[in-house]
Amino acid sequence: MNVDPLVSRLIELALEEDLSLGDVTTDATIDASFMGHGRIAAKQTLVLAGIDVANRVFDAVDPEITLRWECEDGDNADAGQLLAEVHGNVRSLLKAERTVLNFLQRLAGVATMTRAYVDAVAGTNAQIVDTRKTTPGWRTLEKAAVRAGGGANHRMSLGSGILIKDNHIDAGGGIAGAVTGARGFAPHGLAVEVEVRNLDELNQAIEAGADIALLDNMNLETLKLAAARAREAGLLSEASGGVTLATVRAIAECGVDLISVGALTHSSPSVDIHMKVRRA
Amino acid sequence: MNVDPLVSRLIELALEEDLSLGDVTTDATIDASFMGHGRIAAKQTLVLAGIDVANRVFDAVDPEITLRWECEDGDNADAGQLLAEVHGNVRSLLKAERTVLNFLQRLAGVATMTRAYVDAVAGTNAQIVDTRKTTPGWRTLEKAAVRAGGGANHRMSLGSGILIKDNHIDAGGGIAGAVTGARGFAPHGLAVEVEVRNLDELNQAIEAGADIALLDNMNLETLKLAAARAREAGLLSEASGGVTLATVRAIAECGVDLISVGALTHSSPSVDIHMKVRRA
Amino acid sequence: MNVDPLVSRLIELALEEDLSLGDVTTDATIDASFMGHGRIAAKQTLVLAGIDVANRVFDAVDPEITLRWECEDGDNADAGQLLAEVHGNVRSLLKAERTVLNFLQRLAGVATMTRAYVDAVAGTNAQIVDTRKTTPGWRTLEKAAVRAGGGANHRMSLGSGILIKDNHIDAGGGIAGAVTGARGFAPHGLAVEVEVRNLDELNQAIEAGADIALLDNMNLETLKLAAARAREAGLLSEASGGVTLATVRAIAECGVDLISVGALTHSSPSVDIHMKVRRA
Amino acid sequence: MNVDPLVSRLIELALEEDLSLGDVTTDATIDASFMGHGRIAAKQTLVLAGIDVANRVFDAVDPEITLRWECEDGDNADAGQLLAEVHGNVRSLLKAERTVLNFLQRLAGVATMTRAYVDAVAGTNAQIVDTRKTTPGWRTLEKAAVRAGGGANHRMSLGSGILIKDNHIDAGGGIAGAVTGARGFAPHGLAVEVEVRNLDELNQAIEAGADIALLDNMNLETLKLAAARAREAGLLSEASGGVTLATVRAIAECGVDLISVGALTHSSPSVDIHMKVRRA
Amino acid sequence: MNVDPLVSRLIELALEEDLSLGDVTTDATIDASFMGHGRIAAKQTLVLAGIDVANRVFDAVDPEITLRWECEDGDNADAGQLLAEVHGNVRSLLKAERTVLNFLQRLAGVATMTRAYVDAVAGTNAQIVDTRKTTPGWRTLEKAAVRAGGGANHRMSLGSGILIKDNHIDAGGGIAGAVTGARGFAPHGLAVEVEVRNLDELNQAIEAGADIALLDNMNLETLKLAAARAREAGLLSEASGGVTLATVRAIAECGVDLISVGALTHSSPSVDIHMKVRRA
Amino acid sequence: MNVDPLVSRLIELALEEDLSLGDVTTDATIDASFMGHGRIAAKQTLVLAGIDVANRVFDAVDPEITLRWECEDGDNADAGQLLAEVHGNVRSLLKAERTVLNFLQRLAGVATMTRAYVDAVAGTNAQIVDTRKTTPGWRTLEKAAVRAGGGANHRMSLGSGILIKDNHIDAGGGIAGAVTGARGFAPHGLAVEVEVRNLDELNQAIEAGADIALLDNMNLETLKLAAARAREAGLLSEASGGVTLATVRAIAECGVDLISVGALTHSSPSVDIHMKVRRA
Repeated sequence: MNVDPLVSRLIELALEEDLSLGDVTTDATIDASFMGHGRIAAKQTLVLAGIDVANRVFDAVDPEITLRWECEDGDNADAGQLLAEVHGNVRSLLKAERTVLNFLQRLAGVATMTRAYVDAVAGTNAQIVDTRKTTPGWRTLEKAAVRAGGGANHRMSLGSGILIKDNHIDAGGGIAGAVTGARGFAPHGLAVEVEVRNLDELNQAIEAGADIALLDNMNLETLKLAAARAREAGLLSEASGGVTLATVRAIAECGVDLISVGALTHSSPSVDIHMKVRRA
Repeated sequence: MNVDPLVSRLIELALEEDLSLGDVTTDATIDASFMGHGRIAAKQTLVLAGIDVANRVFDAVDPEITLRWECEDGDNADAGQLLAEVHGNVRSLLKAERTVLNFLQRLAGVATMTRAYVDAVAGTNAQIVDTRKTTPGWRTLEKAAVRAGGGANHRMSLGSGILIKDNHIDAGGGIAGAVTGARGFAPHGLAVEVEVRNLDELNQAIEAGADIALLDNMNLETLKLAAARAREAGLLSEASGGVTLATVRAIAECGVDLISVGALTHSSPSVDIHMKVRRA
Repeated sequence: MNVDPLVSRLIELALEEDLSLGDVTTDATIDASFMGHGRIAAKQTLVLAGIDVANRVFDAVDPEITLRWECEDGDNADAGQLLAEVHGNVRSLLKAERTVLNFLQRLAGVATMTRAYVDAVAGTNAQIVDTRKTTPGWRTLEKAAVRAGGGANHRMSLGSGILIKDNHIDAGGGIAGAVTGARGFAPHGLAVEVEVRNLDELNQAIEAGADIALLDNMNLETLKLAAARAREAGLLSEASGGVTLATVRAIAECGVDLISVGALTHSSPSVDIHMKVRRA
Repeated sequence: MNVDPLVSRLIELALEEDLSLGDVTTDATIDASFMGHGRIAAKQTLVLAGIDVANRVFDAVDPEITLRWECEDGDNADAGQLLAEVHGNVRSLLKAERTVLNFLQRLAGVATMTRAYVDAVAGTNAQIVDTRKTTPGWRTLEKAAVRAGGGANHRMSLGSGILIKDNHIDAGGGIAGAVTGARGFAPHGLAVEVEVRNLDELNQAIEAGADIALLDNMNLETLKLAAARAREAGLLSEASGGVTLATVRAIAECGVDLISVGALTHSSPSVDIHMKVRRA
Repeated sequence: MNVDPLVSRLIELALEEDLSLGDVTTDATIDASFMGHGRIAAKQTLVLAGIDVANRVFDAVDPEITLRWECEDGDNADAGQLLAEVHGNVRSLLKAERTVLNFLQRLAGVATMTRAYVDAVAGTNAQIVDTRKTTPGWRTLEKAAVRAGGGANHRMSLGSGILIKDNHIDAGGGIAGAVTGARGFAPHGLAVEVEVRNLDELNQAIEAGADIALLDNMNLETLKLAAARAREAGLLSEASGGVTLATVRAIAECGVDLISVGALTHSSPSVDIHMKVRRA
Repeated sequence: MNVDPLVSRLIELALEEDLSLGDVTTDATIDASFMGHGRIAAKQTLVLAGIDVANRVFDAVDPEITLRWECEDGDNADAGQLLAEVHGNVRSLLKAERTVLNFLQRLAGVATMTRAYVDAVAGTNAQIVDTRKTTPGWRTLEKAAVRAGGGANHRMSLGSGILIKDNHIDAGGGIAGAVTGARGFAPHGLAVEVEVRNLDELNQAIEAGADIALLDNMNLETLKLAAARAREAGLLSEASGGVTLATVRAIAECGVDLISVGALTHSSPSVDIHMKVRRA
């Protein structure tokens, strides 16, 4: 039910780097005919993500492996909680194990950190969004994990959203020139977002007809004024820069619509997930 | 001077996910003829890694981009320190920027955390090694970053090293049977490493003729006895499980030869690296 | 200066289907050492497009081929006009010839038809845009050819623009539900476009907060009313369905902002371009 | 029942260019659990082609989609006629829809134009054949569509047929030298075809021992003489150059065996095919 | 000067299987800065083939390696003769060495065996040709090595030549039916070859209008009659089946035009070629 | 039950080189609806290998083909013995036939030669091992065929084993320096093997702490002394260089642990295997 050629290629890479010379330990010690089952369980509190890619890794290793998941992407799990049971040839289960867990642990890590930020701004108007600071090769997977954690997605790629930064402004003839250029060139369905560093630039962006203002690294006081000004002018506002769990609620309370957090995808630690295989 | 087809394919994936629909903002606002330069600089103290992959990303985006690096993989850099200067077409620099930084920040993150562990065990006999808990698709890159940080590499893949774990032992007829099986099947140049959880299992591994003992999750007291026993019997010993920066020195002082740390590759946060592009 | 992995793969396919068994005629009759040049010329009035892909095909066949183009994408050329001169090994020129021309003829065909539509609406407010009815495998190339002809691009893919059609409306709980769903799910930089078939649906779309109205297959009278209503409500309007060169100006004069024309990419005939190779 | 790796790669490209960032509209508005069916119908008179590739696109998007075709490649269909019914997950059907139709419309367009040429020469001895002027990446598909329309195929690639053109003759030492060269180099199962522009060159080709004469751009009078001369000498004759529906019958009546028509694949407009999806 | 995507992919595979985990010995013992040269020499009498693929392997490992060849494909070399000198980074030379030699030794082995067969039939009318019994993945390379050895090529693939065997005859309604079917279906430039086992079948093939007769496993007496009969009827004749160096001349003297030898590509032993690397 | 991406890519290459233009003979003469069966039989005494890759080729051509094997990899078969029966669409069987046989014949050839060497050393302590002199692209397949024949595998790639040769010794500061370098750089699970040409070098290797000694091209007398010396010092010993079926037993009787034979994979002739297809 899912077409996703880039993820298929990442899975191929992952299996190739681990298994292109086979698995000497398993092939030496486990009989080819042994069937067995595995239990995938959380070893800490976490938010699950990555079920689909885990399924696809097992399937790529051995299409006869079957899984039954006990929960869904986005569900909370406690330490010790069973996430899935998996059945199949023991050699296949052991060959897939590490790659499956490497995917799940990272993606659940992203979802878990996202959930923490989302919870921190609960009750405010602000939505937590990701950035393009994703692990190269993992864009689609990590963006889905952010959604599993309750966050929303910023643009998926350089071709599917306009974000005018200072580099573009400097080279494009100021904010007005850059906004006009973007309107004229890009597909009509893409809104124009402009990065601004102060109220003066925000006003220029508004006058130039931007749709969204990215409020970059402003202090809370300025941020509050900027969010109000943007709203009044009919623009969405996004806070960005140096957001931490400690600061995110105060930022949200400034009235911005969106808060983008690079750490969701570039610095979330893996969560601990475990798979125990037994011969049936 | 480097042949590395899996890394080439990861770079392709990374560029495809970000650029397969082009870069609407840059193409709309930057003239195609503009030439410029960029400064890649550290924004925090870090250990550098990833120079080669960064070069290859720039080259894949535009072969006419040129770089001059001010330091090498494994060098320490302070906040604000210039890492590299890059010259080329401005559109190309902007299209490559995020992907290059996403690679560098993660790999330097791995090297930086590795250096911290290596420093923590300085003066002991123990070597810090990585695991197979790497980011799927990134095995080679992350293992090189561990080396840049001063660590050593555990086996690169399931086909290039033998590590008999409890699953193999259970299904393979005990430790003795599993070691014999591995010796008989695997290429003769692969040493046999066995995971043991207590001194009794260690003694079985020694009797079975193992070359290396992985001492799993032992308390310090047991670890010390086990390391001594292994050394006496001519085996290398590796401590594993729950190693943190706070505990690593005490573990090293137990006399083990190797300490494997999964967090080096699965939970190191990105370090902050920055690229500022200006029109020439 | 161009990163475009999908086009690279299309070029590989194209060369593989023509050359994977070699070129028996050329290898049998032309000495491997012969050098020569070719003249690429228009054999009819046309608008040029495809220079970049032509360059890349020559380069893929033989990196030592050199070209000098006499015009740029988007230029008009008359019958007989020289477009480019190419120099290199004669075998290489002959092996590349047909594939290069097959690309150029189709892409210049797209640009030429686009220019005709653009000229037909000159002086009105309407912009000619393409659709997703492109030749599978050629999306990026054909969309660039539309721009070369003076048209603009609709969304590049299903992931880079929102267009709610009747199928989505039926299944999504009416226009209001579908618009709300799209706003909640999609990245905030994507505007919401809704397909409407009459004024009643247009009013629903406006109330639901859509950004753009696709006015599907309306007669001119209705179209005029709809375009005015959309403008008044602050929406862009796009006319679509059954647009021909004969009808496009009347449609434009209804006051719509955009007119999408599937024929630009699915039914433009190739234009005649020719390459004459001579031994130097 | 079909092995066709180049077509598989074209399908991958096609899905990647449309779906690599997902389908935001569908995922936002259609519940993941909805099942439905679609009706693929002709909206104009046409000759069908492309069933196999359409099946493969649906299968690549979602292997659980099932189809039932009401007709076969090569069948005529009237406006409004049902071509196929398709069942499956609604999201999957909507994601596949445009790519499937883009393939079918173009390939049926090729078959439809081919049928018109074939009908125009009915009762004569001449066979309509295609050329290498196919859409890059589509060689196999378009050549099959020509067969579906009742035409025959010229050589599939530069490696599977010999066709000596003026470039080869000039560089290869005249017609005699080129024919001898080709006989000596190419596999013995490839017949030697030579392009000639007048009766003198035809006679040279006959003397050189060619098997097939391509009669290039001759007027009807010359063509008649040439066809007779070729037949008398035991060669097949092929008319080529500037063939249109208006001229093809007169050309056929000159007695040639084959008439090659580049327009079949480079300039056939898409035919109109439609898919209507409904929730089950 | 060479476009050959399948060979490029074979080279990638070859490097990936040997080098995807790096070269631990070389990287551990050779300084990254060392430059050196290598001498590639014959260690036995041989006919050289594979220069192009050897160049491409070196280039894929390190584009800065340079080579100077002392002979060409098809040249004889004596034991001890220098074939090429190569210069570059020592690590790169050592990483490429085994793969380069594996290619050269096999391809020169094919050329060397071919030359022996060609020499054995010198002075007769018969040409030595290969078969489709090539090493999977190596078709183009091995067919070129046969040409280097002085042989000619049979059809390159199932799509570029017609060869009707007993399976086709049985299922296709006898020889006459199969020949008619092939004429009607295949591109007009492909000659029709039919496998026959006796004079009766040969006569049927002649009557059916075949162009070439494959005389399968006939004794010399029958072969002589068959070759004469084929010639008289204007067909080429090809002897096939159980051809060895001991029997090939007698077969040639029966008057056949072609003798196909599967062993050229499926059973030629590697010849011994050697590369000695020294630091410069 | 098998994940093996490099083999999948080799199969793709093999099918592409034979079938990318289709199979004109089969498609012209065999009705698309015909079902049939084939018998794969040995035409000489052989040791079977390659069952898995044969299955995968059939599956890649047509997933509905079914096979029943009468024996396993490593089984002996006599001339005439049935190896497998295969059922499916006749066109598919004929398209797959040659590629399947090309794989089986070569791999069974490797296994058959390996068995001869293994039998020749029966009763001694020596194990027959392969080398890296494999057919490029076939490493995994040929190494498995060696195991099927009763041999063992040397290192699979340059990254999964250490083998210090004279080049490394010369550049790495002598044997001692090279061994130390390898120990320090390579993963701890890789044993250190050193190539030595005489007893003096062997003693250096022993002192340097090597684990395995490759005894290169020694005469039997020296070999015997070297094997004893190695054993005494706790090293494995491997004889290498110029091993033939005539000499291998005498070499084994010198007391070495391993004998590596390049010819197993670079010069084993194909064995004769045959597939007869009949319509059901």
